Amino acid sequence: MLVYVLHGPNLNLLGSREPDVYGRLTLEEINRALVALGDELGVDVRCFQSNAEAELIDLLHEAGRKAGAVVFNPAAFTHYSYALRDAVAAVGLPVVEVHLSNVHAREEFRRNSVITPVAAGQISGLGLDSYLLGLRAVVARAFEREGS
Amino acid sequence: MLVYVLHGPNLNLLGSREPDVYGRLTLEEINRALVALGDELGVDVRCFQSNAEAELIDLLHEAGRKAGAVVFNPAAFTHYSYALRDAVAAVGLPVVEVHLSNVHAREEFRRNSVITPVAAGQISGLGLDSYLLGLRAVVARAFEREGS
Amino acid sequence: MLVYVLHGPNLNLLGSREPDVYGRLTLEEINRALVALGDELGVDVRCFQSNAEAELIDLLHEAGRKAGAVVFNPAAFTHYSYALRDAVAAVGLPVVEVHLSNVHAREEFRRNSVITPVAAGQISGLGLDSYLLGLRAVVARAFEREGS
Amino acid sequence: MLVYVLHGPNLNLLGSREPDVYGRLTLEEINRALVALGDELGVDVRCFQSNAEAELIDLLHEAGRKAGAVVFNPAAFTHYSYALRDAVAAVGLPVVEVHLSNVHAREEFRRNSVITPVAAGQISGLGLDSYLLGLRAVVARAFEREGS
Amino acid sequence: MLVYVLHGPNLNLLGSREPDVYGRLTLEEINRALVALGDELGVDVRCFQSNAEAELIDLLHEAGRKAGAVVFNPAAFTHYSYALRDAVAAVGLPVVEVHLSNVHAREEFRRNSVITPVAAGQISGLGLDSYLLGLRAVVARAFEREGS
Amino acid sequence: MLVYVLHGPNLNLLGSREPDVYGRLTLEEINRALVALGDELGVDVRCFQSNAEAELIDLLHEAGRKAGAVVFNPAAFTHYSYALRDAVAAVGLPVVEVHLSNVHAREEFRRNSVITPVAAGQISGLGLDSYLLGLRAVVARAFEREGS
Amino acid sequence: MLVYVLHGPNLNLLGSREPDVYGRLTLEEINRALVALGDELGVDVRCFQSNAEAELIDLLHEAGRKAGAVVFNPAAFTHYSYALRDAVAAVGLPVVEVHLSNVHAREEFRRNSVITPVAAGQISGLGLDSYLLGLRAVVARAFEREGS
Amino acid sequence: MLVYVLHGPNLNLLGSREPDVYGRLTLEEINRALVALGDELGVDVRCFQSNAEAELIDLLHEAGRKAGAVVFNPAAFTHYSYALRDAVAAVGLPVVEVHLSNVHAREEFRRNSVITPVAAGQISGLGLDSYLLGLRAVVARAFEREGS
Amino acid sequence: MLVYVLHGPNLNLLGSREPDVYGRLTLEEINRALVALGDELGVDVRCFQSNAEAELIDLLHEAGRKAGAVVFNPAAFTHYSYALRDAVAAVGLPVVEVHLSNVHAREEFRRNSVITPVAAGQISGLGLDSYLLGLRAVVARAFEREGS
Amino acid sequence: MLVYVLHGPNLNLLGSREPDVYGRLTLEEINRALVALGDELGVDVRCFQSNAEAELIDLLHEAGRKAGAVVFNPAAFTHYSYALRDAVAAVGLPVVEVHLSNVHAREEFRRNSVITPVAAGQISGLGLDSYLLGLRAVVARAFEREGS
Amino acid sequence: MLVYVLHGPNLNLLGSREPDVYGRLTLEEINRALVALGDELGVDVRCFQSNAEAELIDLLHEAGRKAGAVVFNPAAFTHYSYALRDAVAAVGLPVVEVHLSNVHAREEFRRNSVITPVAAGQISGLGLDSYLLGLRAVVARAFEREGS
Amino acid sequence: MLVYVLHGPNLNLLGSREPDVYGRLTLEEINRALVALGDELGVDVRCFQSNAEAELIDLLHEAGRKAGAVVFNPAAFTHYSYALRDAVAAVGLPVVEVHLSNVHAREEFRRNSVITPVAAGQISGLGLDSYLLGLRAVVARAFEREGS
Repeated sequence: MLVYVLHGPNLNLLGSREPDVYGRLTLEEINRALVALGDELGVDVRCFQSNAEAELIDLLHEAGRKAGAVVFNPAAFTHYSYALRDAVAAVGLPVVEVHLSNVHAREEFRRNSVITPVAAGQISGLGLDSYLLGLRAVVARAFEREGS
Repeated sequence: MLVYVLHGPNLNLLGSREPDVYGRLTLEEINRALVALGDELGVDVRCFQSNAEAELIDLLHEAGRKAGAVVFNPAAFTHYSYALRDAVAAVGLPVVEVHLSNVHAREEFRRNSVITPVAAGQISGLGLDSYLLGLRAVVARAFEREGS
Repeated sequence: MLVYVLHGPNLNLLGSREPDVYGRLTLEEINRALVALGDELGVDVRCFQSNAEAELIDLLHEAGRKAGAVVFNPAAFTHYSYALRDAVAAVGLPVVEVHLSNVHAREEFRRNSVITPVAAGQISGLGLDSYLLGLRAVVARAFEREGS
Repeated sequence: MLVYVLHGPNLNLLGSREPDVYGRLTLEEINRALVALGDELGVDVRCFQSNAEAELIDLLHEAGRKAGAVVFNPAAFTHYSYALRDAVAAVGLPVVEVHLSNVHAREEFRRNSVITPVAAGQISGLGLDSYLLGLRAVVARAFEREGS
Repeated sequence: MLVYVLHGPNLNLLGSREPDVYGRLTLEEINRALVALGDELGVDVRCFQSNAEAELIDLLHEAGRKAGAVVFNPAAFTHYSYALRDAVAAVGLPVVEVHLSNVHAREEFRRNSVITPVAAGQISGLGLDSYLLGLRAVVARAFEREGS
Repeated sequence: MLVYVLHGPNLNLLGSREPDVYGRLTLEEINRALVALGDELGVDVRCFQSNAEAELIDLLHEAGRKAGAVVFNPAAFTHYSYALRDAVAAVGLPVVEVHLSNVHAREEFRRNSVITPVAAGQISGLGLDSYLLGLRAVVARAFEREGS
Repeated sequence: MLVYVLHGPNLNLLGSREPDVYGRLTLEEINRALVALGDELGVDVRCFQSNAEAELIDLLHEAGRKAGAVVFNPAAFTHYSYALRDAVAAVGLPVVEVHLSNVHAREEFRRNSVITPVAAGQISGLGLDSYLLGLRAVVARAFEREGS
Repeated sequence: MLVYVLHGPNLNLLGSREPDVYGRLTLEEINRALVALGDELGVDVRCFQSNAEAELIDLLHEAGRKAGAVVFNPAAFTHYSYALRDAVAAVGLPVVEVHLSNVHAREEFRRNSVITPVAAGQISGLGLDSYLLGLRAVVARAFEREGS
Repeated sequence: MLVYVLHGPNLNLLGSREPDVYGRLTLEEINRALVALGDELGVDVRCFQSNAEAELIDLLHEAGRKAGAVVFNPAAFTHYSYALRDAVAAVGLPVVEVHLSNVHAREEFRRNSVITPVAAGQISGLGLDSYLLGLRAVVARAFEREGS
Repeated sequence: MLVYVLHGPNLNLLGSREPDVYGRLTLEEINRALVALGDELGVDVRCFQSNAEAELIDLLHEAGRKAGAVVFNPAAFTHYSYALRDAVAAVGLPVVEVHLSNVHAREEFRRNSVITPVAAGQISGLGLDSYLLGLRAVVARAFEREGS
Repeated sequence: MLVYVLHGPNLNLLGSREPDVYGRLTLEEINRALVALGDELGVDVRCFQSNAEAELIDLLHEAGRKAGAVVFNPAAFTHYSYALRDAVAAVGLPVVEVHLSNVHAREEFRRNSVITPVAAGQISGLGLDSYLLGLRAVVARAFEREGS
Repeated sequence: MLVYVLHGPNLNLLGSREPDVYGRLTLEEINRALVALGDELGVDVRCFQSNAEAELIDLLHEAGRKAGAVVFNPAAFTHYSYALRDAVAAVGLPVVEVHLSNVHAREEFRRNSVITPVAAGQISGLGLDSYLLGLRAVVARAFEREGS
């Protein structure tokens, strides 16, 4: 089974960007850890980063056709992109929304996600673990769907 | 006269995406019906779909140079894209906003359109008819402008 | 099939009342255009205007017994008459809400309709066309219901 | 002693209108049950239904002159008719507001009653029992007033 | 010149209704005082009271055809009747809104008038004087219009 | 059949606490009246008062196992105890929420109940009658369920 | 009897300042008209203008000691000066708040007066007449108090 | 190392309570799965359930003295218990908040957690996995703290 | 005379809990200082701490029977416990609400106290002095009541 | 050490102004009590009253240069004078905000203080004691600063 | 041409007041820089500081008679002084509002300016440059007006 | 030093688009003026316009690597693009936000910028001067950083 991991805008700067908020890991290191855990769980993990809402929509549509589950960090789009929300709702897959930082402990606007209501769930505040646990969660859900 | 019909994000999935909300017609079928009605009304209808806000802005600018009217379904952009609002306001053409579903009978956030205040009007909830009636409306307005 | 067209309060003044907002057509002219289009579509159109909420409720109840569809311009009642909302919901017919002016481009309070959530859809901002397209829409829906 | 029971707009459709919300009892059946309970309690019950706010105001004024208590289901007027609120406040009688359905478990707007703050109390969600218990309550209050 | 004085819902009860709020004057006494002042100012004053929104709309329309000015106490309709607001806006006459009590010193909801924005002005809190001063104001405005 | 009557915080002070708001009846007198009415209706009424949210949750759970219906006055918990709301929702019984005073005529915060949306209904403002009518209502509902 | 007329900030510019909003009368002309009407009504009118909140507070205190009534146009202080509100409440005199323009038909913030709730009443939108009618109203009230 | 798992109000009913929302697993089954995973991760897991806010506060204080990490499902207390928030903030341990259901896809009030801003992070919507992943996350954090 | 000092949830941790917010004094030290000041003022001070809302309610009821005044730090309950508010209102004693930290200079939610409106007053931000001054205040008030 | 006591607008009327709210003590009596307590505490108390925001700003600046602490009753300025807030923040002294009445138990607007967030603390509702306890508090804080 | 530079409340403390927010420049240094730039631009710059709203109003009126442009830092008055807003609107000159600090990055209340809507524009966050660029801007606008 | 000037969506239409709002200058003319001023200030100015949020994010990232400062007109993105906000925050450069029109004097939604809180400052309402002064400001800041 294929799992898509989608990283939203500005995450390409991870490691150098505001390290007290986002940590010192680079995106590449996160991706490597996800692929490794994928191997362990028996799934093929493919990671994509984009600053473009439209590309993320296209990737969600593509995941709908090719993959069995999605781990999605919408970054700043979390708070306003109803287009991504509709894409998540349109795709018939388990999607877990993840955030590196605890979005509930920062600026007020970060507390609202327009996407979570149509996702399977949300994991936030656990750094790299947000992604790894997110991967475990969607894989479990996807296998369950396959089995049923 | 040329009429542009613009479809916003996720509408490429029409027919398969949440069919109880959006119906079973595909986008191609909608486009064919619009072109056919355009023939009947004596206008040349060109249909475009994009998941990218910037492409829709560019198409609105292009319509401003080439077309006489626009039928516009901004989909999820309806609720936050002030950039599309400004593009509609900048283009000196009759623009009618259309929605397949009754946006006023769904989630609260769908009730607010940032675009309607600068459009000529809005038609919602009538499925394919939202588009066809929208086409009739803009064509009538465009011929009126030509005549005056 | 019978189609009721209901005009709400102050619409009896059309033509003379604030013509830059509502245009110069009189209600009689609108009604004649609707009857003519009804002929073309093969339905019998009956038009009523009332300044009284209770009369409009009674007319909706009557439509529920006698007609196949309703075109309804609730005028100012749009913004507060939950009694009319309940009447629309109680009547098992396709009802399309129409407005001459673009209610979304005027005072803030005009943006909220308490009726649209229980109507089939809304058409606004297209002057006489709001009514004519509304008639086309409800007739299509009513025939579809009959056929199904 | 005379007790007025006032039914607001659309309640004439009871039994056929949205039966999963309002039940299958007709208004006539409710009225008969109220008259029967009135007999048991030793009061003369008179029931009125109107879709017109003004008629309900007039009936409240009339009750103020002729009756000892009022059971009032303002239906949709509950949520906006400050005119009925003022009429209830003007009438020096025990008035209990009743609702067939649990207005607190439906659309947000149904949670607010502009009338309860000037009524003696509110009973909601208990179907026919809302009326019957309301009648018991106002009769008890009215006899108490007579006695004191 | 003819001046219409319109009294809204529940004002027929004046004198007996909540006298600490509304005073002990009856409506008839107010009307007599208005007619007397009208004589003094050289205008013909006609007073109407109605509990029905639709009748007040009709009276405003009639005033538009027959009278030169209107003194209007919308009572509870002040706070929600957009239909009366539209009627006031539609009528091309000086309309002054008056209130016996100081609506700004009572319940929160009474502070908002949906009608004042389209009236010439508002006078509140001065009991009978609210009416008499309102009459003076509209007469002055009406004569000014005639003269200009 | 067993019916639980639950009294929330501070109701142990009834009779002495703010008697113009809550009346002069003691809790014991209320309980005696409820037991007497229970006898009349053929049910076994058991009354509990607690100032502790957790005890009320436990009593609701216990009622779910042992009783057929619940009359519940959550007192101040009405306005914030989502834990009690969840307990009411979890218990598969008819629960009627009752209040001695008219909570809608007091401080603003008392108008909102977090519990009513999951209860069968609400009765407020009728003093002892709120309880007695509540008992009648839940007993009727419980017998209906048994019968069906 | 002495009547104080107090004019708030920027009213010294009347006649030249935004004449389509405030008219072409100068403050001096308004004062002369007030003094003349005062003569007619048998009271001594003294007019003061100040751009300083503290001076207006002092003048209200002084009025409390020397005058029988106050006509007060707080101008922009209307919308935020709780200090003036407290001064009006502290002074045991009839105070009528007046405004030249219809404050309810302008920017949203002008609709709220922090002062009216403690004044006797408000007159707005009637230009010079707002002041003259305000003078009539307070004089009537003051004589009434004297007489009682 | 010791890890406390705290279950809030009504979770003792898991398995029977609203199974479409909360699933069919019992609390005991969840606890067994947590203990098993704890064994695998080399930590000693102790599970507690309480319907009492005060007991949960005491357990958090105790964890502060005895344990290295906490997995906390505050259930309905999530939405209002500032006392639990203060207890989480007072305890110097990694605390992860977990929810079985997707709290962001249910009633509006469930979207707000007063606790997350002082927790390390939140996991919601993943059923049993919310707990298991939460355990993994706090254990990783606790070992990291020990190591540093 | 007996004075109750009640400390709300988490205050048992004082001295170790977030010392930059709450200072380094332990609860015991605060209690000793209060007893000492009580001696000086001629009153018997009894101090209680509880994490349980119900225990604090019971202590307030007990104070109502045994004590002459109450110093109350409701801690986090300040912001939501309407049950404690009702208990304070029910108890016929001078109650002063105190806070160690300046609750108005912290998170937004801490600015609102549901209890102050029914207390005699509030003292916040002065550390130990908040308690000591609170004790002086209630003792003065209690002696005044005794004397009168 | 010098301590400034600043009294805001309308407090010069104390004793005669709304005595049920503010008590019967005059400002002079309050000042005398403060000076006497100052003697006892070993500080020199200077009292100022002003109705002018600018004078109070100047006095705060002067206190910053000459005094060791400030007791400040901003009266109505409490609710809107951000200029006084900035002055308090700019002055590097302990400032305690005091109110005679319980501002939290009166009109809604009185619950918000724009000044407390930058003051050391707030004391309200204790009449003269609010001032005396405020003086004790600032003196303690000022001596502590001196000592450290 | 004459240009007025107006500094609002507390700006006399610049250099010593909260230097991390407002910098270490004194007001005198700012004024010297402005006069120097004025020389360069060929205008005569006059600088005024006042803590009194009324003085600033008077200075704006005076500018209206004597100067060609105004640079205005309203400081804390920015957020509530509608009287200054009206003065800016009344004066027929280019007025640019300036702020030393980035008011949009501080407390929420500082984000709202009641004055900008009637000013030509706003410059904030650039320290001394806010003033210097503001001077350049108003001078350019004033010369343009002169030229046209 | 290199300075990037970024123009957001629809600014390519400058000169023809709504000229009463945005003026008659074309974007090319603005760019030429900026380059000329750059020459004068000794910096190399590069101007970019894009209708695509993602391109603007990429350009900000590129500026972070290549340039010393940014002048940014986010146009409609100002009001909702948290992705651009995060990009501005991630880039360690002085960024000044500029607007041609006075965004505070237009539709309500234009008053809120999600970007200013992380920018150095904002300049609005000064047409071409907004850009030129913005360039002066960032250049001064960038040289200061270089020097320090």
